[in-house]
Order: sequence, then structure tokens, then C-alpha cells
Amino acid sequence: MCMILLVDQDDVLADFELGFLSKWREMYPDKPYVPLEERTTFYIRENYPKELEPLVDSVYSSPGFYRSILPMQGGPEAVKEIERKGHKVFICTSPLSRFEDCVLEKYLWVEEHLGREWTKRMILTSDKTLVHGDILIDDRPEIKGVCKPVWEHVLYTHSYNKQITSKRRLTWQNWKEILNI
Amino acid sequence: MCMILLVDQDDVLADFELGFLSKWREMYPDKPYVPLEERTTFYIRENYPKELEPLVDSVYSSPGFYRSILPMQGGPEAVKEIERKGHKVFICTSPLSRFEDCVLEKYLWVEEHLGREWTKRMILTSDKTLVHGDILIDDRPEIKGVCKPVWEHVLYTHSYNKQITSKRRLTWQNWKEILNI
Repeated sequence: MCMILLVDQDDVLADFELGFLSKWREMYPDKPYVPLEERTTFYIRENYPKELEPLVDSVYSSPGFYRSILPMQGGPEAVKEIERKGHKVFICTSPLSRFEDCVLEKYLWVEEHLGREWTKRMILTSDKTLVHGDILIDDRPEIKGVCKPVWEHVLYTHSYNKQITSKRRLTWQNWKEILNI
Repeated sequence: MCMILLVDQDDVLADFELGFLSKWREMYPDKPYVPLEERTTFYIRENYPKELEPLVDSVYSSPGFYRSILPMQGGPEAVKEIERKGHKVFICTSPLSRFEDCVLEKYLWVEEHLGREWTKRMILTSDKTLVHGDILIDDRPEIKGVCKPVWEHVLYTHSYNKQITSKRRLTWQNWKEILNI
């Protein structure tokens, strides 16, 4: 059976967490940082002292930051394999509210790491409940919006979503056993 | 009843046809042009001689072209009125395949003509059949994709879609009588 898989971009295909931490330490070497395995909140800024929030935001808005993010290990290969198995994959991503900093770079990132054809598979939306699919692979603990979603939310495992026990979860290291597709 | 209306951007909210024609005549004053009322194809380039195709494309890719497009008369006011009536409006738009030329400017256009909050209502997708809604207002004669859409496609009337008789159609001058919401 052909399934439609919606795959989130940040921290599912693109290693946003690592990109942020690398850039943070490069830009602000004298400031404290939160190691990846100690991150506990979905939004990075919530794990940093309030007074550092403008600095945290300045990392996202550095020109070229988004494009410099590395792929999640195994991510691009996994979505291409899912396609080869006859399913349809769409990249379903919510822009930062400062859209200026990321919208075009999100497309350029996909072109660079998956190929230009994949830019046609991108769906940019702040509300993922409006998008039809069988499965949404996303690292955000809870996904809300105006609709009752038709997809099953499968969590992409990160340290900051470990508390969620009500959903199936995977990484690109074990997706084949979990999804069984 | 609260409805979800998906509203296309180009030639429904933004007067792409007029924007193209104005820019074309400005850039290529010695070339022939097709007046708006004589346009018969959805894609502008198909109404122009084959040898002019690179010039047609050069209009779209002029930096700032997309942002310079004027709103369709009554469009921004109509979607705001639909919202005030308690419905939800999302701007559902497909980027040009040369996404570099339009993606960011589509967001900036919405910010300028509807307000920054409306950028959160944008859905960028090449496949609108994946998006859930009650009605899609769109000028494209036929809308295809991987899903059987749940929305009703209501045509936004232009000279190049007049041949379609199987769908309801409207403009921002008569939408209240047609939609009856």
C-alpha cells in the first residue's frame, strides 16, 4: 500500500540542534552552553538564561546559518529509500516566526542535501494539522492546529522529547523496524 | 459553522497577471505583448512566442518583481472579512519551480499587504490536494496531486479559465453572493 509520509525538516532531516550549538560556541565562546544530551525543552531559548535570549536569536538570524546545518545522519538516505519502496514523502516544515531568516535557506538546504527535485516536495506551514498524510515524523512533543489531524504523529527521538510515552518514536537508525514499511 | 478556506496567492490575492504585463512592457517595450483580456492559457509563457520564453522568465526572476505586484482589488479586504465572520483563511500557494525568485518575496508580499500575522497563515506547497479545507479559491483550471482533495475548488475568474463550466466561480466583487458565508 502506498503511504504518504510527512517528514519534518528541523531536527529530523537537518541537524538544527548541532548547527545551533556549533554556531553558538563560535559566536559566543565565553557564554555558557547546554550540551545536546542535556537539552530538555523543545525551544532552545527556553533552556538558556532569559538574558541570553537576544543572543540565541542572533544565531538563527545569521545569514547562511540555516544553509550551514548538517543533515541528520541517515536522514536523506532514509527518505530516498522510503520513496524507492513506493511511498510518497513530503517535507513538512514550519518556518521560524522570523521567516526572513529561514524560508529561502530551507529550500536551498533541501536542494543541496536531497536534490532540486525534492524542493517540490516541500510544504511550508505553521499548522501541520492541515496537511494530509498517513504518518508525520516530527520531533515536536505535541502538534496542535485547527484540524484533527489524519496522520499518526511518530516522534523523532531527541533528549527534549523523551518524556513523551504516548507515541511511537524512531530515529534514522531504527526506522525500518519501527515503521515496518 | 466555521469553515476553512484556502485562498491562492497569485492572481487571486496578488495581481500577478498585471504585474507581469507591466514589467514586461517596461523591460521589453519593443516586444509584442498579450493584453490581459486576451490571455487564454494558465501559464503566461504559453501565450507568448516560443523564442521569447527566456525573456518571459527573466521578468519573474527580476529581484523585487514579486514584491512589486499589486493586490487584486478587494482581495485583502475580502479575506479579512471572511475571518471576521468566524471562518479560517489560509493562503495556499505553489512556488514557481525557480523557487529562488519568489519564496521569500511571497512572504514579504503577504506581510506588506495583509500584515505580519498573516504570514503564519501561509502554506507553500506544490501539491494543494494534500491540504485540508472546505473550499479552495484558485484561478488554475485543474488542480491535481497525489490525493483526492477534500475541498471544493471554486475558480477565481480570469480570461484564461473561462472555458471551465464544471465549477463554481467568483471574483472579489461577487464572492458574498457566491459563497453565501
